[in-house]
Amino acid sequence: MSVTFPEGFRASGVHCGLKENGKKDFALVVNDGPLYSAGVVTTTNRVYAAPVQWTRNAHADGHFRAVVLNSGGANACTGASGYADAVATAHDVAVGLSCASSDIAVCSTGLIGERLDMRAVRSGVAHALENLSSDGGEDAAQAIMTTDTRHKVSHHSAGSYSIGGMAKGAGMLAPQLATMLVVLTTDAVLDPSQAQKCLEKAMEYSFNVIDSDGCMSTNDTVILLANGASGVTPDLDEFTANLTKVSYDLALQLIGDAEGASHDIFINVHGATSRQAALAVARSVSRSNLFKTAVYGNDPNWGRILSSIGVVPEEVAPFDPAKVDVAINGVKVCVGGGVGEDRNLVDMTPRWCEVDIYLNAGEYEATIVTNDLTHDYVEENSAYSS
Amino acid sequence: MSVTFPEGFRASGVHCGLKENGKKDFALVVNDGPLYSAGVVTTTNRVYAAPVQWTRNAHADGHFRAVVLNSGGANACTGASGYADAVATAHDVAVGLSCASSDIAVCSTGLIGERLDMRAVRSGVAHALENLSSDGGEDAAQAIMTTDTRHKVSHHSAGSYSIGGMAKGAGMLAPQLATMLVVLTTDAVLDPSQAQKCLEKAMEYSFNVIDSDGCMSTNDTVILLANGASGVTPDLDEFTANLTKVSYDLALQLIGDAEGASHDIFINVHGATSRQAALAVARSVSRSNLFKTAVYGNDPNWGRILSSIGVVPEEVAPFDPAKVDVAINGVKVCVGGGVGEDRNLVDMTPRWCEVDIYLNAGEYEATIVTNDLTHDYVEENSAYSS
Repeated sequence: MSVTFPEGFRASGVHCGLKENGKKDFALVVNDGPLYSAGVVTTTNRVYAAPVQWTRNAHADGHFRAVVLNSGGANACTGASGYADAVATAHDVAVGLSCASSDIAVCSTGLIGERLDMRAVRSGVAHALENLSSDGGEDAAQAIMTTDTRHKVSHHSAGSYSIGGMAKGAGMLAPQLATMLVVLTTDAVLDPSQAQKCLEKAMEYSFNVIDSDGCMSTNDTVILLANGASGVTPDLDEFTANLTKVSYDLALQLIGDAEGASHDIFINVHGATSRQAALAVARSVSRSNLFKTAVYGNDPNWGRILSSIGVVPEEVAPFDPAKVDVAINGVKVCVGGGVGEDRNLVDMTPRWCEVDIYLNAGEYEATIVTNDLTHDYVEENSAYSS
Repeated sequence: MSVTFPEGFRASGVHCGLKENGKKDFALVVNDGPLYSAGVVTTTNRVYAAPVQWTRNAHADGHFRAVVLNSGGANACTGASGYADAVATAHDVAVGLSCASSDIAVCSTGLIGERLDMRAVRSGVAHALENLSSDGGEDAAQAIMTTDTRHKVSHHSAGSYSIGGMAKGAGMLAPQLATMLVVLTTDAVLDPSQAQKCLEKAMEYSFNVIDSDGCMSTNDTVILLANGASGVTPDLDEFTANLTKVSYDLALQLIGDAEGASHDIFINVHGATSRQAALAVARSVSRSNLFKTAVYGNDPNWGRILSSIGVVPEEVAPFDPAKVDVAINGVKVCVGGGVGEDRNLVDMTPRWCEVDIYLNAGEYEATIVTNDLTHDYVEENSAYSS
């Protein structure tokens, strides 16, 4: 159902030649109004792609009529010419939709440091416009895949209004944004600043708490389009909760399809003095290659958890290492910073792995979801350029 | 030649049973005076092993008579009992050498979260004392190996005085200390505060600039023993330079033997506004799994370098991403933040890989030495507990 689940959205996904394998590589999501409110969050990487720069600029008035997305090339580190390419793409779509270029968001994903084949892009725009349909959401989701093994879509019906979404991302998955392109749609009535606020809040508990490989991309973009077609003005807290639901579902799909992963690891930190402290501790564990390889080997190696907890500065996360307990898949292998229950009791064979870290220092908690580090990760990221 | 290269040091390396494979697992380095000055640097990890705690405490007066080291167990996360084990080990050595327990530094390496077999340790102390010899440096270096494939020793003769050293470490190699145990010896005349200062300075340009896998250990310890047996009081700057030489040689041996690595990568950052800024940029690249797998695949993927540079906050390292140039093995693949010379010109087959990053923002530079991320790294760290 994807981005075309709510009323008043059309989408398409076509092949234009950016990918050499003949698969879909060009997508368009169009908001048919009556409102064109949009929220946007992009990468915090100081090196950001031309389409990110364009989309930020174009979002100045808080409105988007459409999002055009391509796989097969990131258009990053391509200088002024690359920026001109992004502008030209927006321009071509705008002409097709009879609106201004600044009404069009542009997203790209693929290899950094190469210009896009603009002849292919131009044909992509034409084909994507021709193929727009109110059930084109699946096609669009397929067209933005890179090393993804499956397309990612989600939707939620709140009764009187709906939310839909699609995402792509399978590597360079890290915060603040996991590397990803995401388009969310809703027929609820929101003004631009409401769309922006709800999106930012929803991200805090979805895309910003997954961290597959610690690498932040140059192209991360999450866009929420709200057209008010349902006529329903939602309670904003309830809407944010529903948006978070769809976003978290997509985020877990990203983790579940992360390059070469064989475990999805939930690092739950409890008893921290603040949510930021809990996040810092969880993040540190999620970035330990030694811990992540241990999980791959089905080894409940809590020593590697403790050693990565200990790297977090005390001013960031105050706690006493001698009071830390750690459970892996329900077995408390570490108690009071030392040996706890028998590690041989831990069953590491399921794909889902739950690590619970009790800092016993405060009342806050947070979860980061990550993956193990596997042979397939190394293979996928060394065997070809991406 | 190792730690027994300078005058007035004896060492030994024996098997006591901590390793199941029958290999040497227990080492002793003894300073026969007349001075017993010592400098010590230990892990900055908040989770630190019992022997680290003991050694810090015992170093309060700036003197050590001997260092006792074991492989086959880290004695970390072992609580009060583990601390008592470290104290007992120091005590036994002290009895053998007719000195105080606080004259003995203790170092351990191996699996975290398991008590040491103290019967084995006790027999290790006895055997190590019996086998002390002025050419025991090689044996000692062998006895501290864990996943190391070769033992690491170095020495330097400054004419009138000498420096020797041994190191172990093959995984968890990260700063502030790369994970390692290192003992350095000299027959130069130094007082304790001089020994400490020279050691700290030497580390800045040796062990603290290698970062194999970003993981900091609980047991890192570097100790300098100075006995003044040469009667020579060195110029401190010159001594520091010589100590740095020996330390850097050992550091490169650690990187060259890092778990599963097939490339040693020198990340040289030029034109930074401060050395700290240069280090932060180099460190960020050295921690990118995507970059490290690309190097493993002999892929000069400069986009992954740029994207990891961009993660460094501007307040830490001010520079303009659009002015950054990057050369890989001498080929300037990125110019002005965009496409430079043909990446196909880069020969990535040598083990040594030089990445030069020109920030064009200031006058400072720094180098971090790291490794690629390989199938063998995953294998070594997933296939068994360590």
